[in-house]
Amino acid sequence: MRDFLPADVRRRTYAIGVIRGVYERYGFEPLETPAVENIETLLGKYGDEGNQLIFKILKRGEHEASGQADLALRYDLTVPLSRVVAEHRSTLPKFFKRYQIQPVWRADRPARGRFREFFQCDVDAMGSTSPVVEAELCAAACEAMQALGFGDAVLRLNHRAVLGGVLEVAGVPTDRHGDALVALDKLDKIGLDGVKVEYEKRGLSPAVADTVLGILGSAAVSGAVAADNAVALDRVEAFVAGHEKAVAGIANIREVLALAARTPAAAQLRVDLSLARGLSYYTGCIMEMTVPDLAGSLGGGGRYDDLVGMFLGQQVPAAGFSLGLERILVVMGERAMFPAHITATAADVLIAQWNAATAGDALALAHELRAGHLRVEVYPDADKLGKQFKYAASTGVPLVVIEGDDERAASELTVKDLRTGDQQRLPRANAANRLREMLG
Amino acid sequence: MRDFLPADVRRRTYAIGVIRGVYERYGFEPLETPAVENIETLLGKYGDEGNQLIFKILKRGEHEASGQADLALRYDLTVPLSRVVAEHRSTLPKFFKRYQIQPVWRADRPARGRFREFFQCDVDAMGSTSPVVEAELCAAACEAMQALGFGDAVLRLNHRAVLGGVLEVAGVPTDRHGDALVALDKLDKIGLDGVKVEYEKRGLSPAVADTVLGILGSAAVSGAVAADNAVALDRVEAFVAGHEKAVAGIANIREVLALAARTPAAAQLRVDLSLARGLSYYTGCIMEMTVPDLAGSLGGGGRYDDLVGMFLGQQVPAAGFSLGLERILVVMGERAMFPAHITATAADVLIAQWNAATAGDALALAHELRAGHLRVEVYPDADKLGKQFKYAASTGVPLVVIEGDDERAASELTVKDLRTGDQQRLPRANAANRLREMLG
Repeated sequence: MRDFLPADVRRRTYAIGVIRGVYERYGFEPLETPAVENIETLLGKYGDEGNQLIFKILKRGEHEASGQADLALRYDLTVPLSRVVAEHRSTLPKFFKRYQIQPVWRADRPARGRFREFFQCDVDAMGSTSPVVEAELCAAACEAMQALGFGDAVLRLNHRAVLGGVLEVAGVPTDRHGDALVALDKLDKIGLDGVKVEYEKRGLSPAVADTVLGILGSAAVSGAVAADNAVALDRVEAFVAGHEKAVAGIANIREVLALAARTPAAAQLRVDLSLARGLSYYTGCIMEMTVPDLAGSLGGGGRYDDLVGMFLGQQVPAAGFSLGLERILVVMGERAMFPAHITATAADVLIAQWNAATAGDALALAHELRAGHLRVEVYPDADKLGKQFKYAASTGVPLVVIEGDDERAASELTVKDLRTGDQQRLPRANAANRLREMLG
Repeated sequence: MRDFLPADVRRRTYAIGVIRGVYERYGFEPLETPAVENIETLLGKYGDEGNQLIFKILKRGEHEASGQADLALRYDLTVPLSRVVAEHRSTLPKFFKRYQIQPVWRADRPARGRFREFFQCDVDAMGSTSPVVEAELCAAACEAMQALGFGDAVLRLNHRAVLGGVLEVAGVPTDRHGDALVALDKLDKIGLDGVKVEYEKRGLSPAVADTVLGILGSAAVSGAVAADNAVALDRVEAFVAGHEKAVAGIANIREVLALAARTPAAAQLRVDLSLARGLSYYTGCIMEMTVPDLAGSLGGGGRYDDLVGMFLGQQVPAAGFSLGLERILVVMGERAMFPAHITATAADVLIAQWNAATAGDALALAHELRAGHLRVEVYPDADKLGKQFKYAASTGVPLVVIEGDDERAASELTVKDLRTGDQQRLPRANAANRLREMLG
């Protein structure tokens, strides 16, 4: 877990602002949930690996010594959302579209762009099974990436029912589907041969592994994206022919592609039958955002129609997409994608302290300049002016203002522009306006 | 701990934005630290009561069963800041002025405006012992309150050395000062008689208690604030005459008052010798913000010159102020202080779905309107129009747009203004401009 110093926070705030702006244009509303959930809310929602990575909080009071944990840190934003929808169902709109930009915690091994505390930027739409929902999520995620400056992001698309159908037709027993998907999810990291080894370890025959990977793991053909997508869907359709759920899943993917055709997602959606997604709660379309220069994804999502029902006892269809802020920031930093203005300094003006006896004058001047919408720092100690200028130069503040005895007598101020070295006197009255002009 | 539904988040975002804006005009820079700290960083910094209220996180892996905790949730923003300053000393400016607006967690019993997860809005200035620092903190805190609309906030001011001097002169043994201050800190809640009972419990004689409370607990005289402040300081100065540290503390309070005289804090600063502040790390001036209609404080702060040294082994003078967001929001809600515009709905426009076959057209239109800076929701299901209008009315969206077969043939759209009931046709081209005009 990391500290974010001012320059970091400014970059994060910029990226969050861009993403939030896009999410709001798509009609998503803000939601925030507590960092801490009851431990039962989280356990059993993320698969075995997920359970292991949840940070658990000791029960208070007399039970503390027993090591019993009753609370846990939020592991993602989707399960808390599902709990909220179950709890507040009667007060929320029928189609609840929310965005949520908050940290989550996983006791994972850190890697590049992977941390134990990281922010997710989620959009989810509750209440509809329409493929319009998936198309809108894909469009919002792609537009957010474009607004950040990512022209080359790819949004991979698959469907859990298609995966299930392929596994079934290939002869993988139903109770091994979870294992088979977890191994497939590692394809990016360990390659086809690695997945085969994993399959063998889990007792799947080499022949079955070859069949599954021959369909799901085949590389994309080299054509236009839309053509590739059509080829991939046709091929898997031929393989699962007659498997009702898989065929419906393929039709669902085709609907999403057609609906997204005139949205910002159009050029970025690519059918990738090997996409599995690690989390266990997905039930329909699954998506993952990637860029060429970072292994792993910058975000992902999908449909999870059963999750709210685990809290409510009544099904509420749902789908969502989550952008991972830290990994996005890592790539943006490496590619120098941040606009220059967000590395601004803390203050526009530093007011030097002439001497301790006139420190009250410095504070009164600061008040006046702040009321004039300037960001003003007052040098706190009555140090020599040379030392104060040295400090100013070290902070990057553009203007230093001095109200010495001469200036006071003449109702003037001295302003030094540290960017040019120029120094001038200006009238004390309406100084804020003049200083704002100098800042440009 | 609570969920914040969209209307809550909008109110919180508004208040945070106002406070952040003021802090930035004072030249404070943003800092963010992780929610989780090493447990040793937190233990022993907040006094015994504080230690009890820290949420502890189970160590991972094999130690999990042992109940051993190695991490803990952030209890305030001051101790993490001190750790950051110690860790990053070489890269931070000599006078590091930072603001930090993040949640903290305390396993406290909840009360009105008191929660187990709550946001603090902190400003701190590191590196100077000048009273300019305290004056600027008081000004920033008061200006933030004024910007939120609080005209009647009072910023109470006291000094740890004055408290220590009074206790010493009254005959309280040095090793009982902590106890005496903890009891005094409850004066607001339990009254003078309650504090006397606490003092007796802790073995302080009734005579000593009377002396201490006679000086520290006497009600403010009824005069102008500045006159009251002078009276209080003169009276305590007479009592501690000759006690060097207490006399210096009184001089320090007078300096801060003089420096703040031409800042937004001027009319709100009130010397209150009974102010003790619960936290153990304060070393100089202490402050607390109150309003008449809420028991307890909306914020507080003070000087803590020794805290960074506990991490760095080298003293770095420091002072800070923390506004409590939740309590501020409670009072703002009760007083109806939120501007009307922040209760805005999620979307400006709802695009109705004419039928499933034309859903792609609806998404294309949505894309166009969003590019025109409108916040647009698309109705996801191909429900009857009446049902769609009913939904629109329930969400409060002002405009509903329909592109039916007739409209499409005429290159037009139908727009219904739900605020007036008016319905009209408008050209499909440049619809975003026309809709923005209708929204006003």
